[in-house]
Amino acid sequence: MTGIDDLPIRDELRGKSPYGAPQLDVPVRLNTNENPYPLPEPLVERIAERVREAARQLNRYPDRDAVELRTELAAYLTRTAGHEVTAANVWAANGSNEVIQQLLQTFAGPGRTAIGFEPSYSMHGLISRGTGTAWISGPRSEDFTIDVAAAEAAIAEHRPDVVFITSPNNPTGTAVEAGTVLALYEAAQAAKPSLVVVDEAYVEFSHRPSLLPLIGGRPNLVVSRTMSKAFGAAGLRLGYLAAHPAVVDAVQLVRLPYHLSAVTQATALAALEHTDTLLGYVEQLKTERDRLVGELRAIGYEVTESDANFVQFGRFQDAQEVWQQILDRGVLVRDNGVPGWLRVTAGTPAENDAFLDAVRAIKKEQSA
Amino acid sequence: MTGIDDLPIRDELRGKSPYGAPQLDVPVRLNTNENPYPLPEPLVERIAERVREAARQLNRYPDRDAVELRTELAAYLTRTAGHEVTAANVWAANGSNEVIQQLLQTFAGPGRTAIGFEPSYSMHGLISRGTGTAWISGPRSEDFTIDVAAAEAAIAEHRPDVVFITSPNNPTGTAVEAGTVLALYEAAQAAKPSLVVVDEAYVEFSHRPSLLPLIGGRPNLVVSRTMSKAFGAAGLRLGYLAAHPAVVDAVQLVRLPYHLSAVTQATALAALEHTDTLLGYVEQLKTERDRLVGELRAIGYEVTESDANFVQFGRFQDAQEVWQQILDRGVLVRDNGVPGWLRVTAGTPAENDAFLDAVRAIKKEQSA
Repeated sequence: MTGIDDLPIRDELRGKSPYGAPQLDVPVRLNTNENPYPLPEPLVERIAERVREAARQLNRYPDRDAVELRTELAAYLTRTAGHEVTAANVWAANGSNEVIQQLLQTFAGPGRTAIGFEPSYSMHGLISRGTGTAWISGPRSEDFTIDVAAAEAAIAEHRPDVVFITSPNNPTGTAVEAGTVLALYEAAQAAKPSLVVVDEAYVEFSHRPSLLPLIGGRPNLVVSRTMSKAFGAAGLRLGYLAAHPAVVDAVQLVRLPYHLSAVTQATALAALEHTDTLLGYVEQLKTERDRLVGELRAIGYEVTESDANFVQFGRFQDAQEVWQQILDRGVLVRDNGVPGWLRVTAGTPAENDAFLDAVRAIKKEQSA
Repeated sequence: MTGIDDLPIRDELRGKSPYGAPQLDVPVRLNTNENPYPLPEPLVERIAERVREAARQLNRYPDRDAVELRTELAAYLTRTAGHEVTAANVWAANGSNEVIQQLLQTFAGPGRTAIGFEPSYSMHGLISRGTGTAWISGPRSEDFTIDVAAAEAAIAEHRPDVVFITSPNNPTGTAVEAGTVLALYEAAQAAKPSLVVVDEAYVEFSHRPSLLPLIGGRPNLVVSRTMSKAFGAAGLRLGYLAAHPAVVDAVQLVRLPYHLSAVTQATALAALEHTDTLLGYVEQLKTERDRLVGELRAIGYEVTESDANFVQFGRFQDAQEVWQQILDRGVLVRDNGVPGWLRVTAGTPAENDAFLDAVRAIKKEQSA
């Protein structure tokens, strides 16, 4: 029987497995940082209405430049992130993964390098490799913050073309200070002209303000965002970026024409009409996140400071074993491969209770 | 003011413009091979219904493997293309452009080469370059058919990793015989193990049967398809491929996780429920396409044989000038840069009449 390795695929893909968390049918799924709150029914109806309207012209190609959507995303950012942007500053694609892919195709790719400070969002490295970009795994402190001096040294040594800074960081949870971003931006530009991408996928859950205002006067700084988390729309696959208009022009040199479907644009526009309701859920999730941090510490776990909708907890001699013990109690969390740690998404109060009951029981068994 | 060239973009992107036909506001648009028939209202309602259902779980990631959609696409192919395939043979992405990008990331990319026989679909070359793949412009005959001996010679000389065969060819319109595909497949495998991609975006409009049955016993042969044309859903961005299951496994090594949104999957599933109605429109368009060929010849133009929903006509000393003259009469056709030729999409009978009136008037002026 012909298998993958019998095909003339690229050598570096041989023996690899597709990326992705296990999708298991479990009562409580707290493994992929999804928002546990379904969209409110009035928004569901509005989506149906806007998609119906879009479907009447579905025989035509969508707006290639997604101008209406980018205008509304810019209005959202202006209103919430403390910095005025317009459609010219904003670009949207199928998930922030595609945004990142387009940035790497434009600013990195074969013969160029990208760096991230790991553990961090593993797709930065995977998409780098997928675009032929050499990937440098930069350092991170023991407490999972970025050690500015160590990061600057890594940038000076490797002179990367693209620098990723994830804030709040995934899977560890902590947001990055503006000063750190500014220092790394300066270090990167000193090494060579290069792009700095601040991945703010989880920023709406943060105790700190968005780093978006830093794009002012820094044409090589990009902030990437997503509607998957705060907007409760992981199924929509809508990522976006904000940057100097020249960056938005540049990614259009590599974007697949008509990459963003008319139904995606219509659905995202409907969700943006309901921003206030959705941000209300974010507030509930922040409260639940803080409760998880407190309760996990009370139980006796170590917990990394979290500005996201998830919490990293440990430490375990064998994180995979504890992951399985939690799963055996009907709760799916994430083993991100950070030795000694696991990650749990903030769910509904009931889901979080189920998770806390599970880890309390496991802790009790271990003490017995 | 900072512009693209002030940014640290890749050298080969400097001075480039984004791909895409001009989007002009003109009464009759026959330039992008869109299907002129809006989706029927019962299908529009069904889309709204299925998307409403999907929106209720939009806070969750979509089915990463799009199993239900791939199953229905396989059923459609089995029913219409004379070869039985299952979900394991089928992969779907955001437009056939993304399918092609994933194939190139898997089977081509940096240090590898791809070939197409030009003029053909220009995105094959553009996506090749976008994935770091060296692009070879292979030969095509004066009458726009593939000269098998010349193509075999080009394959033997360049030993490409990926071979594109577009059937029906865009922008010229002619379908490729199975014997040609088989000869080029053999030539490609003789040069080195390599992937042959048959791009059948327009096959539903062809006088000839699909080349899909050729995938049987040929694991390095892929057929790519789209719902943009025959399904009248250019706005949906749904492309797919059929091949040996190992190819489907292989592209999953490079696909961005959750690349296909829940609303895209829901909309495509709704459209597939209405296949018979949509294929009825295809029959009308074939009739109109044949009428365009006949009338254009009667007017005195040269016309390339067409198996697609568009017609290539000429010859012109200055195709760009004639393009403008037609536009001045309110009809937008396409100048694909094939010297001496223009391409017109088969529209509704009224749209085609408007186009024919325009070119008749131009011809008359020239004779006067």
